[in-house]
Amino acid sequence: MSNDFRPNLNDIREAQRRIAPHTHRTPVLTSESLNEISGAKLFFKCENLQVTGSFKMRGATNAVFSLTQEEAARGVVTPSSGNHGAALARAARSRGIPAWVIMPNNSPMVKRAAVEAYGGKITLCEPTIKSRQDTAAAVQARTGAILIHPYDNDLIIAGQGTAAAELLDEVPDLDIFIAPVSGGGLLSGTSIASKGIRPQIRVIGAEPKNADDAFLSLKAGHIVTLEHYDTIADGLRAHLAPRTFAILSRLVDEVSTVTEAEIVAAMKLLWERMKIVVEPSGAVPAAPALNRRIHAVGKRVGIILSGGNVDLTSLPFSAA
Amino acid sequence: MSNDFRPNLNDIREAQRRIAPHTHRTPVLTSESLNEISGAKLFFKCENLQVTGSFKMRGATNAVFSLTQEEAARGVVTPSSGNHGAALARAARSRGIPAWVIMPNNSPMVKRAAVEAYGGKITLCEPTIKSRQDTAAAVQARTGAILIHPYDNDLIIAGQGTAAAELLDEVPDLDIFIAPVSGGGLLSGTSIASKGIRPQIRVIGAEPKNADDAFLSLKAGHIVTLEHYDTIADGLRAHLAPRTFAILSRLVDEVSTVTEAEIVAAMKLLWERMKIVVEPSGAVPAAPALNRRIHAVGKRVGIILSGGNVDLTSLPFSAA
Repeated sequence: MSNDFRPNLNDIREAQRRIAPHTHRTPVLTSESLNEISGAKLFFKCENLQVTGSFKMRGATNAVFSLTQEEAARGVVTPSSGNHGAALARAARSRGIPAWVIMPNNSPMVKRAAVEAYGGKITLCEPTIKSRQDTAAAVQARTGAILIHPYDNDLIIAGQGTAAAELLDEVPDLDIFIAPVSGGGLLSGTSIASKGIRPQIRVIGAEPKNADDAFLSLKAGHIVTLEHYDTIADGLRAHLAPRTFAILSRLVDEVSTVTEAEIVAAMKLLWERMKIVVEPSGAVPAAPALNRRIHAVGKRVGIILSGGNVDLTSLPFSAA
Repeated sequence: MSNDFRPNLNDIREAQRRIAPHTHRTPVLTSESLNEISGAKLFFKCENLQVTGSFKMRGATNAVFSLTQEEAARGVVTPSSGNHGAALARAARSRGIPAWVIMPNNSPMVKRAAVEAYGGKITLCEPTIKSRQDTAAAVQARTGAILIHPYDNDLIIAGQGTAAAELLDEVPDLDIFIAPVSGGGLLSGTSIASKGIRPQIRVIGAEPKNADDAFLSLKAGHIVTLEHYDTIADGLRAHLAPRTFAILSRLVDEVSTVTEAEIVAAMKLLWERMKIVVEPSGAVPAAPALNRRIHAVGKRVGIILSGGNVDLTSLPFSAA
């Protein structure tokens, strides 16, 4: 893969160095029973165990620590459904600057509490993309803070790519790499890192069938948005930006869509067999392999479990 | 510490080599928010992420792979409240030999299912120590299988000690090491490894107040047993054997007892903040530090999270 495009593997390597002091190098876990279920050899990069409970800490840290002193002094602001907001607040606290987080008024309490615990200043908005963007712009105008978009940002994309780079540094001979896709920041970074390090790798995006706008977009050749995103995977309700659409169009081999039942089944298997807390959105990339939706039998498969922020008092597991 | 006693650090180093092909080198996780709550720097050795979901896999593997060919051919048998049984079944399957597991008829279904999934042959007994031992003896007499006691066994103790040895190999400068105590196998192995590698370390056993027989035994100078063990920590209901009592008397500095509420609070914090599934017994060793029951402020503390086998459909977390 050429380095003509930006962000590229060099940007990801630079991000690795920049974020290392402020993030966890998360463990790579394996499970014999999940290998049996999938027929593949699965290597799970556990971003649910990342600082703030999601991969979003990588991109946010890369963006915040790339600001000049002058920019940083003004603080940062973002529209976010939760995990990016928490991560941005946490990264801003590491740098000692303020973070304003715009959140829809129907966000789970657990995600709002996390943003506040990290010192973020929450401004609630209506649960529409327009209201979020308008509110962010208003806060930006009032405070002078720098807007850090959750995915439509090269530094964010490069930061998210560090998870795949770490996994490939540890397990080089992967055949397939799977990451979830929503706005496309993680999948963009993952595909740049994966194909940069190992050109023959197959990169697959995983998406709920009930929020399959990325699948439809790549098929149509232009960005498709949906009226409704009715999925338990509440972190996967954004749609692609031109920047991520261009990267995914160039580098992603397949988008695999999974049902709500498949998401919950994958989530339960991860909790039961691997003993880790994974949120529904975080379980989506495991679902294609565990439900044998992709051609992975006999292959070595890297999977990014993207997050673990879930309300423990309201789990989708019913008594047997 | 002298190597005159057995098992000693050499036995643990030998166990490390023996079990490595069949077990996970589990990750060591840290959490800034749990450090803040405890006032200490906590290093969690995640044996909940071990093969079979508990540290018991270490001892069982060491014992099974220490058998001669002739012994191994006869198979193995054990009385067990669950995790040791599952681990023995799994280790036996690795060696290609049968395992008979004696379980009380009130064992959680999730633990019985695990033993069966690993190919163990379950024989149910009454939930008394006597019934378990009698039933194990009967199976042993009938089949010729080798009895592998869950903790009253030097090879088991040496195997359990490998978790502490791994953590100290990775984080050498610990001030305190905490492990749960029930029959005393894990705490024996932990204290032998810890004091062998770092003589000045303080070793603390953690135990439910409602099953504080080890606390009482070390205080009294002889083994004390209780009539009732009324605790949510269902893996910590055994009492010491002369072998483990002798080791703990020599090497353990303190036993810290924790309430049922403190156990559940510690468990919830581990799930929420660290995103890992820990069973109540596995959370017990975190409870003294998280509830500031011990003098750990400002110290570097190793903690063995011993297991993660829990019924996900019946959790002790109520809605907020």
